[in-house]
Amino acid sequence: MSLATVSETRCFGGRQVTFKHDSRSTGTAMRVAVFLPPQAERGPVPAFWFLAGLTCTEDNFAQKAGAQRVAADLGLALIAPDTSPRGDGVPDDEAYDFGVGAGFYLDATEAPWSANFRMRAYIEDELPALLAAELPLDMDRQGLSGHSMGGHGALTIGLRNPGRFRAVSAFAPIASPMNCPWGEKALPRYLGPDRAAWRAYDACALIADGARLPEILVEQGTADPFLAQQLKPELLEDACREAGIGLTLNRRDGYDHSYFFIASFIADHLRWHSARLGL
Amino acid sequence: MSLATVSETRCFGGRQVTFKHDSRSTGTAMRVAVFLPPQAERGPVPAFWFLAGLTCTEDNFAQKAGAQRVAADLGLALIAPDTSPRGDGVPDDEAYDFGVGAGFYLDATEAPWSANFRMRAYIEDELPALLAAELPLDMDRQGLSGHSMGGHGALTIGLRNPGRFRAVSAFAPIASPMNCPWGEKALPRYLGPDRAAWRAYDACALIADGARLPEILVEQGTADPFLAQQLKPELLEDACREAGIGLTLNRRDGYDHSYFFIASFIADHLRWHSARLGL
Repeated sequence: MSLATVSETRCFGGRQVTFKHDSRSTGTAMRVAVFLPPQAERGPVPAFWFLAGLTCTEDNFAQKAGAQRVAADLGLALIAPDTSPRGDGVPDDEAYDFGVGAGFYLDATEAPWSANFRMRAYIEDELPALLAAELPLDMDRQGLSGHSMGGHGALTIGLRNPGRFRAVSAFAPIASPMNCPWGEKALPRYLGPDRAAWRAYDACALIADGARLPEILVEQGTADPFLAQQLKPELLEDACREAGIGLTLNRRDGYDHSYFFIASFIADHLRWHSARLGL
Repeated sequence: MSLATVSETRCFGGRQVTFKHDSRSTGTAMRVAVFLPPQAERGPVPAFWFLAGLTCTEDNFAQKAGAQRVAADLGLALIAPDTSPRGDGVPDDEAYDFGVGAGFYLDATEAPWSANFRMRAYIEDELPALLAAELPLDMDRQGLSGHSMGGHGALTIGLRNPGRFRAVSAFAPIASPMNCPWGEKALPRYLGPDRAAWRAYDACALIADGARLPEILVEQGTADPFLAQQLKPELLEDACREAGIGLTLNRRDGYDHSYFFIASFIADHLRWHSARLGL
């Protein structure tokens, strides 16, 4: 087994487990939090991926979203990866929005980041293969979601792999990193100055370049302090309208950027995914 | 208004608010997390208090228990205080189980702790009066619960104030601080060497001395690492049996001491309380 158990407890009749493993993508030990519903004791279950935002680890979604209750009802596994490599020897930056905790779900090409910051390869290829080999997951039925930087991750990974995920949603995603301060800071440092290389990591640019999903569900709080400057859901609305992608964008009055917002609507997303996963 | 709002957001259609205020009990600024359900916009609602455990702040229950969903359904406010005074000038100890984050819901009588560590007065008197004066709470309908050290707090405060709370429950409570290492360390330092003074802060001793509640609900995970040495629910079982108190002790196979355990059963407790609060 390449997955080592760091901690495990019962949760809503299933198992909440934190695994650790050595990643060839990042060159570090990586952790991932997995909820296996009671149904997983009888056979493979569909998987719901949730990519977290800036400063987060594998713990935030597992501990704060309250997703296990509905996942246990539906028979859905929850997979919450870390947001970057971390540990001794991993380059970092003092800022909260670059370096450790801020992997942006891309494969860096610029030194010193390129040695470890390969979260695209990790999330798209290495981790799914590892989990499929070692856990009772039905990888023909996967859904993908995320929050903020992880909403950007969910949208871009979903758009680049349209056959893999039967459902893609996001909470307060960074709609276009090429057009907001967080992305304008991170993309050149990770990827270099050529903006053409950034387009694979921008949902709106991917759509403009031809990537398609049948539909996307997005939740956005109107009291989110990052809404106007960083998240810009109107750019995703424009891109989807032009491309004929069915975007459902729910603007939620008075909700902010926190996990209180995610917790309030995660059941809606899990049920939306489960309908598309044949549950 | 003596309550200042630190943060506020919508949550399950209600409001999740962190308040700050100057406490005369502790001589410090104190924080408390309050969830007001949608029903509170139309009038006073019953209140469910949750006292947290060692190392916790007002955030842990609010962020990790997933209680707001059911509280919004039921029309129940959630009140989560901090676990001790904290800040400049407050004496502390390097240990996680004494000093800041470890107030044990008592009024210390020994220097240097007696100046600030007066969580009994704070939770029993000052905070209820303040919240009743400033928030739409029906203080004739209060329920009380807590976790670990906060479970001890809930049981002892409930037993000392039998008319005030219509329902008292606990998750993995310290059943008898006088008979476990956590208590044997904290009680003499806060209260001095006279064990008679400790009895007001020990649920089993209070019951032996005549305190009564009509019934108590306790949840306990069998995989809790603190079960045998620190929590000792069998002592509470013995005390309740001798006193004729109706104790329901649910031993939950495979659950540990974490908020995953609390989250799994908080809805049961909220519904149990709500039935006794006339909801």
